[in-house]
Amino acid sequence: MLEKYIKAARRQIKADLVLKNATYVDVFCGELRHGDIAVVGEKIVGVGEYDGKTEIDCSNLTVVPGYIDGHVHIESSQLSPEEFAKLIVPRGTTTIIADPHEITNVCGIAGCEYIAKASQNLPLDVKIQLPSCVPATPFETSGAILSGKDVESNIKNDYIFGLGEFMNYPGVINCDEDVLKKLEAAHAAGKIIDGHAPAVYGYDLNAYLCGGISTDHECVTKEEIEEKISKGMYVHIRHGSSTQNLGNARYMNERNFRRFILCTDDRHAADLKEKGHIDDALRRLVKEYKTDPVTAVTCATLNAAECYNLKFRGGIAPFWLADLVAVDNLENFNAKYVIKSGKLVAKDGKALFNTSKRYLPENVLNTVHLKKELTANDFIIELKGTRAKVMTIEPGGVVTGCEIEEIKSENGDVSIKGTDLLKLAVVERHKNTGNIGKGLFKGYGFCGGAIGITIAHDSHNIILMGDNNAALAKAANTLKQIGGGMVIVESSGKVHSLTLDIAGLMSSRDAESLQHDSRTLIERAHAMGVKREYEAFMSLAFLSLAVIPKLKLLDTGLFDVEKFTFTDINA
Amino acid sequence: MLEKYIKAARRQIKADLVLKNATYVDVFCGELRHGDIAVVGEKIVGVGEYDGKTEIDCSNLTVVPGYIDGHVHIESSQLSPEEFAKLIVPRGTTTIIADPHEITNVCGIAGCEYIAKASQNLPLDVKIQLPSCVPATPFETSGAILSGKDVESNIKNDYIFGLGEFMNYPGVINCDEDVLKKLEAAHAAGKIIDGHAPAVYGYDLNAYLCGGISTDHECVTKEEIEEKISKGMYVHIRHGSSTQNLGNARYMNERNFRRFILCTDDRHAADLKEKGHIDDALRRLVKEYKTDPVTAVTCATLNAAECYNLKFRGGIAPFWLADLVAVDNLENFNAKYVIKSGKLVAKDGKALFNTSKRYLPENVLNTVHLKKELTANDFIIELKGTRAKVMTIEPGGVVTGCEIEEIKSENGDVSIKGTDLLKLAVVERHKNTGNIGKGLFKGYGFCGGAIGITIAHDSHNIILMGDNNAALAKAANTLKQIGGGMVIVESSGKVHSLTLDIAGLMSSRDAESLQHDSRTLIERAHAMGVKREYEAFMSLAFLSLAVIPKLKLLDTGLFDVEKFTFTDINA
Repeated sequence: MLEKYIKAARRQIKADLVLKNATYVDVFCGELRHGDIAVVGEKIVGVGEYDGKTEIDCSNLTVVPGYIDGHVHIESSQLSPEEFAKLIVPRGTTTIIADPHEITNVCGIAGCEYIAKASQNLPLDVKIQLPSCVPATPFETSGAILSGKDVESNIKNDYIFGLGEFMNYPGVINCDEDVLKKLEAAHAAGKIIDGHAPAVYGYDLNAYLCGGISTDHECVTKEEIEEKISKGMYVHIRHGSSTQNLGNARYMNERNFRRFILCTDDRHAADLKEKGHIDDALRRLVKEYKTDPVTAVTCATLNAAECYNLKFRGGIAPFWLADLVAVDNLENFNAKYVIKSGKLVAKDGKALFNTSKRYLPENVLNTVHLKKELTANDFIIELKGTRAKVMTIEPGGVVTGCEIEEIKSENGDVSIKGTDLLKLAVVERHKNTGNIGKGLFKGYGFCGGAIGITIAHDSHNIILMGDNNAALAKAANTLKQIGGGMVIVESSGKVHSLTLDIAGLMSSRDAESLQHDSRTLIERAHAMGVKREYEAFMSLAFLSLAVIPKLKLLDTGLFDVEKFTFTDINA
Repeated sequence: MLEKYIKAARRQIKADLVLKNATYVDVFCGELRHGDIAVVGEKIVGVGEYDGKTEIDCSNLTVVPGYIDGHVHIESSQLSPEEFAKLIVPRGTTTIIADPHEITNVCGIAGCEYIAKASQNLPLDVKIQLPSCVPATPFETSGAILSGKDVESNIKNDYIFGLGEFMNYPGVINCDEDVLKKLEAAHAAGKIIDGHAPAVYGYDLNAYLCGGISTDHECVTKEEIEEKISKGMYVHIRHGSSTQNLGNARYMNERNFRRFILCTDDRHAADLKEKGHIDDALRRLVKEYKTDPVTAVTCATLNAAECYNLKFRGGIAPFWLADLVAVDNLENFNAKYVIKSGKLVAKDGKALFNTSKRYLPENVLNTVHLKKELTANDFIIELKGTRAKVMTIEPGGVVTGCEIEEIKSENGDVSIKGTDLLKLAVVERHKNTGNIGKGLFKGYGFCGGAIGITIAHDSHNIILMGDNNAALAKAANTLKQIGGGMVIVESSGKVHSLTLDIAGLMSSRDAESLQHDSRTLIERAHAMGVKREYEAFMSLAFLSLAVIPKLKLLDTGLFDVEKFTFTDINA
């Protein structure tokens, strides 16, 4: 192949594809240049004046390297990798560092394998990070446990790119044996380890970094960014649906900017479709934060490639991977043409590749297991007295509060009639334990039945909320029946549901039809009272995430995150 | 080991070594910071306030990461790797990218292995590049030939870091089959390829880069640097003994400086001892070229580490390799302490390690092979007429000229008596071919015998110059007898010599005593008339380098570099 590259570079043979008359971003010198960009096979072979078998006129366009998303959970889109690609590739993203943490909590290593195989033939390089913290805590029942030993045996696999965000920072700094085994295994395999260390500073940060961890996407302050970069980390500027820190771009300067990269972490399909992906981050950086556009592009391309050791990627130069995006300008970043590994794969925001044939192995389907059909009695909450701990959501959406309330009981069950309380339940769905964690929630607004979903971070049991025991039971049973997804059961027994067949997290359907149905269901939830400040289903999904304060509900019971131990509902 | 790092980072146990109260260069943010630098084993574990089992007061010192020489031929020092390390480590260099091109031309792969093994236990990381162009041209007789097949079978070895400077750029751009095989093999092994592309521009440069070549150390103009960097290359700023381009630092700016690294390429022992190594480059960059010192240090450390994919090296941060240099200040760069992989290995310019026990395998010794004892008759030059091509040296030292001269002959041999001509001969010493290339040289100044050396780029045959056939023969025979080195034979037959026992290129002796004897011999050559504008022996060594214009002498005959073919002495 080298021979063909070289001959085309010297114009002895025609290039396969030439982007004619392009202004392009030279990320190495930080400048705009002008010329034809010649491509042979998957490589750029030259810039200058070239003829191609195929030519694309880029006279009024600016060409930039394909974007790299430095950290993303595909599952958060609720889409299959194929449909996810269909949304982001036309936006200009050509490489993602994907951490299939969610599906691995449900399906174990089979979840990683699924994401890898489903991505194999896409015009998107999906680099798979082996999730490092499955489950998120040892207190809950997840579909899988990835021990140090499991990491040791899987990290070496060729399809595994590195070790995913190491969220268990207390485990690192306290030298948990199994945690260290995971880190050592990643080093032994020569693979990169992503970090996740919100508000970890000083000696604790030194200790965390001694695990050999390279990146962080949780920075929120200038001081945090400066300390982390000065200690050798790469810092992700994050453009997720709910978690955002684009403003961190203000702390970039000419000396430190090579250590900044972009990521989305968690981004919903609606945002991807309506606003965009890394392109939207670039647009907002340039427009809202006045980031120099060439610098912003460099963060999204060369910097990420350097961080993740992706050689000959992220720049426009001979022998570099022909991942190219022709945009209208460096303000709007509207992608007119997207070239992945030398092939035109999207035009005017539309994918030119077919994703209708999807990879869908048995072992990521039918992942909702209940020991028995649930009944109304399973949702009785019998208090010892009249005071109970009640969960609330703090403004912002993922941190919860704990209030002590006077609660009435009737026939051995709490009576919430006439209050703004609802029952909350987490029904274990992986191991047939029969576990049901139960609690009370205040202020969601829903009334007249039950609402539920099989996405419940990070173990993804069934999480339900409602004012009617029979509806709660029916909601759980329905979710089992449809193989996972979202459900609303009215007090009358009427059921409205949407299936997320892949691990109960994602749908194998088209993005478009899925989103339509999803929106209908969400609107129904709001119509039944869910306050607009909440995301009807996704706010539920975070009520079980026991690594974020304060009070959470696991399948095993109420959990006090600050004390990192279970707590009794009776106050 | 991670456990120990982490505990020390959190100050639960003492660090092994602490550099107390240091000002240090943060290459990530491009700033100076202050604190204690704590080290455990070979790693930095933290910056802050630390206690150590051993502590070094750095109150008045500035600590920088250990320097990386991005491209060097150890052989040019004429020292063994052990003695080379003894000179450069106390200067602050802790990693070198070494291309054993010279010794491999003599000994083949055994030369690479020797450099690797001799370097194994040194406090210096020697990353071995497999020489890519052995021999430099197919027209001469070298000790070894590294074909594409040889590269294929050797590049995969763990001790081989990458493929050395690809000097044969015509071979690359003309798609020479064997050349492409070498490049493909390096890519297949996932190893970096160093470049060497003087004045290669435009489409030829595009083509050269399509070989997948990453670096260049031959840039001389602003335009060349800009083009090479914009096409994705790293550019070495070179601080060799004769080849220098420190001035290229003027073309660094805040946007492109990450693509600049430092190297020495070829540096003599005397310069290393008297002026220094990378430290001297830094000193001169700051003093003469007004380079920002933090930027200069970053080029010599983080930038090189990034270029060569040396992760966790080249910066002062937790988990990064504890290669540290405490210098007096960022102007003089006098190294007070050098720490390599966490161990104090030099203090006040003196090595604290012992190199007296040297690795010296049989297969790099006794490398001078002559078919038979040479006699005066072997050096007769019989011309067809009276006009001959005569070699000269252009100002600068390595480019030669060709002049046509009227030559007298006597008894079937040229007669140079009363002229400023000398006989030049290249005697093949590897394969017992009996080849002797003969020519005439004008203006060297030497008279009264012969002078010779077994260093003759790049095939390293014996190169001799003199005005006396018997002395020329005796010089060759002496070089065989002493196993390689430098020699002067007076017309009287008196011999003065210095042995370079390792491949005829390097000495296994101490730097100090070798230099003393070498200087004595060089001074004797000048005393016998060699003009001061020449380096008595080393100028000779370049008269056979057939990749630099214009007229050169090979063991196979006179060679016209511009026509890239042999040429007859008769004009």
